[in-house]
Amino acid sequence: MINKIGTHLKDIETPELIIDLDILESNVNTVSKAYKDSHLKMRAHTKNLKSPYLARKQVEAGGSNGGVCTAKVSEAEVMLEGGFDNILIANQVVSDDKIERLCSLAKFADMKVGIDNIDNLNNLSKFAIKHNVVLGVLVEINTSMFRCGVRSSEHAVELAKHAVELEGIDFKGVMSHQSIKGLPTEDERWKVGEGYLEICLESKRAIEEAGIDVEIVSTGETFTFDIALKYPEITEIQGGTYALMDLNYPYMPFDIAVKVFSTIIDIEDDKITIDAGNKCIAAPNNATPLIEGVKSELVEMGLDYSIHKISDNKKYNIGDKVYLLTTHEDGLINRWDKFVGIRKEIVEGSWDILGRGCHH
Amino acid sequence: MINKIGTHLKDIETPELIIDLDILESNVNTVSKAYKDSHLKMRAHTKNLKSPYLARKQVEAGGSNGGVCTAKVSEAEVMLEGGFDNILIANQVVSDDKIERLCSLAKFADMKVGIDNIDNLNNLSKFAIKHNVVLGVLVEINTSMFRCGVRSSEHAVELAKHAVELEGIDFKGVMSHQSIKGLPTEDERWKVGEGYLEICLESKRAIEEAGIDVEIVSTGETFTFDIALKYPEITEIQGGTYALMDLNYPYMPFDIAVKVFSTIIDIEDDKITIDAGNKCIAAPNNATPLIEGVKSELVEMGLDYSIHKISDNKKYNIGDKVYLLTTHEDGLINRWDKFVGIRKEIVEGSWDILGRGCHH
Repeated sequence: MINKIGTHLKDIETPELIIDLDILESNVNTVSKAYKDSHLKMRAHTKNLKSPYLARKQVEAGGSNGGVCTAKVSEAEVMLEGGFDNILIANQVVSDDKIERLCSLAKFADMKVGIDNIDNLNNLSKFAIKHNVVLGVLVEINTSMFRCGVRSSEHAVELAKHAVELEGIDFKGVMSHQSIKGLPTEDERWKVGEGYLEICLESKRAIEEAGIDVEIVSTGETFTFDIALKYPEITEIQGGTYALMDLNYPYMPFDIAVKVFSTIIDIEDDKITIDAGNKCIAAPNNATPLIEGVKSELVEMGLDYSIHKISDNKKYNIGDKVYLLTTHEDGLINRWDKFVGIRKEIVEGSWDILGRGCHH
Repeated sequence: MINKIGTHLKDIETPELIIDLDILESNVNTVSKAYKDSHLKMRAHTKNLKSPYLARKQVEAGGSNGGVCTAKVSEAEVMLEGGFDNILIANQVVSDDKIERLCSLAKFADMKVGIDNIDNLNNLSKFAIKHNVVLGVLVEINTSMFRCGVRSSEHAVELAKHAVELEGIDFKGVMSHQSIKGLPTEDERWKVGEGYLEICLESKRAIEEAGIDVEIVSTGETFTFDIALKYPEITEIQGGTYALMDLNYPYMPFDIAVKVFSTIIDIEDDKITIDAGNKCIAAPNNATPLIEGVKSELVEMGLDYSIHKISDNKKYNIGDKVYLLTTHEDGLINRWDKFVGIRKEIVEGSWDILGRGCHH
């Protein structure tokens, strides 16, 4: 490995997963400034970052509640090992083997999990009693994705009522997750964002009207981090993408910090072939990568190379280096064991991505 | 981890990368029977397998020359560590940093590499002299893919003539790699396969006519493993996919040994959602996965789940287990750190996939 500390970018071996530390710090500072004096705090979502080190960067910047989200039990195990003791699995945990692992974690950390089904809730209680732990639960509210979450506030109330009666279960509140497609105008973004947040709050209010306290409203994401400030009832935002960013959010006040640094290995007319393919970056269907700084289009993607058509008049030579950008940060980071942190084109460090490859 | 030795499949935690050892052994035995008394031997291509353990299974079955292929220097490093000392990088190694690593390997193993460019060949010689090693070279012949390889036998002769003059370089012969699309009939397969092999042999003969010995003709792959037996001049086949197989070769005498074992986590009408997505399997564009044993169609693929439409009348329950099959074994195996070997539905062992994630 020649990518050691102090090496200049022009000398590093490629392909390499690069994080520009100046950009990362600027992104996390944008959020910490917005949340510093607010009721609203960030709960870093780590399904994107997959790294306790990077999650700590978010927390240490300020404006955070000190907790993290994960999508899976295996990711929660990595975050507990990385020093976090307040973890929300922003998803359902349904199979017995994984519920048992969740209970093991609850011996060492404040563990919370999403629920949208009464049988699953009963099962969580059964295993919590068996292991003598308490599991925090948040009713997940479907706002748009129709993947998980209750479809009505009546169902949310029913689950909350049941949760407060169950041994081993601590009812904490509600959560939701959503996404926005394409490149919305500022007006569209606010309208769509407010709509999603209000669906979540509708269930929160219905639960309170049924006489049950709601301590946590955990919702939002990168595209609503500022919109949520409008709602005093929202207690935390599940922000993931904002720290490292990808091509999906050019309209937000964040820059792309994570890139694949790659060498041009072949040139034919207006096409360049680089040494980064599907093994380095999520595949085209959910992440069509682009070369940074020029108009480029993906022509072909192999496992270890990709071909890009350059439509600017930029001329390249074999051996030149380029940055590849992605539309899907989560998939990108999952392809790598380590990232190299750079500042002003000099390697500042290399860190293991401990949450990579968590399948369970 | 509950996927320990002796566990029945029904009790293992999912998703899991499974290799059916009976099927694997049947596949490698098919090749070893065909090559046992032949001039033609197998050189296991390990860009698919990524595992010295699995490569050894191929070699130990018989009909092998004891060597392996890799696609990259980093994969060759893994195979040397795994006990192989006869390695062909069936690709070009072009950048200075990787040529230096190739030379380091050549101190411990018989290293061979593909060439298709005179500047690259000169550079290989320069570094071989610097490190006091000898690098074997094979001229790569383009037969159909127009990715690497010389486009004419004249160019092949030119490179061979130059190679035999160079210090630090041992000219070994020629190589080619090719693929076949779709589901050819037996006649089409033979016609296309013979055509590709003959393009490679044309360069081999031209080099010999120029008075240069050709020791190795390394060509073919799973779809020509039997066709190549017709040509006494071919010395070895670069066979990769045949050992574990994928959905691309139903017309060949091999079965699929590698699968993702997965749990159904949601059912809606004729659609099942399973706990295996892009983090487990190469993405749809180059590997549309299918559920084994029924007519199925991919509807949606997330990082940690996928939705499949079942068009048979098969009824499932949440918690049922299914096998997911892939069209791209290379991409699939690269997603996993380990595989679980099973025999008659019982876990027989779990092995690290040492070549996973080799980016360099």
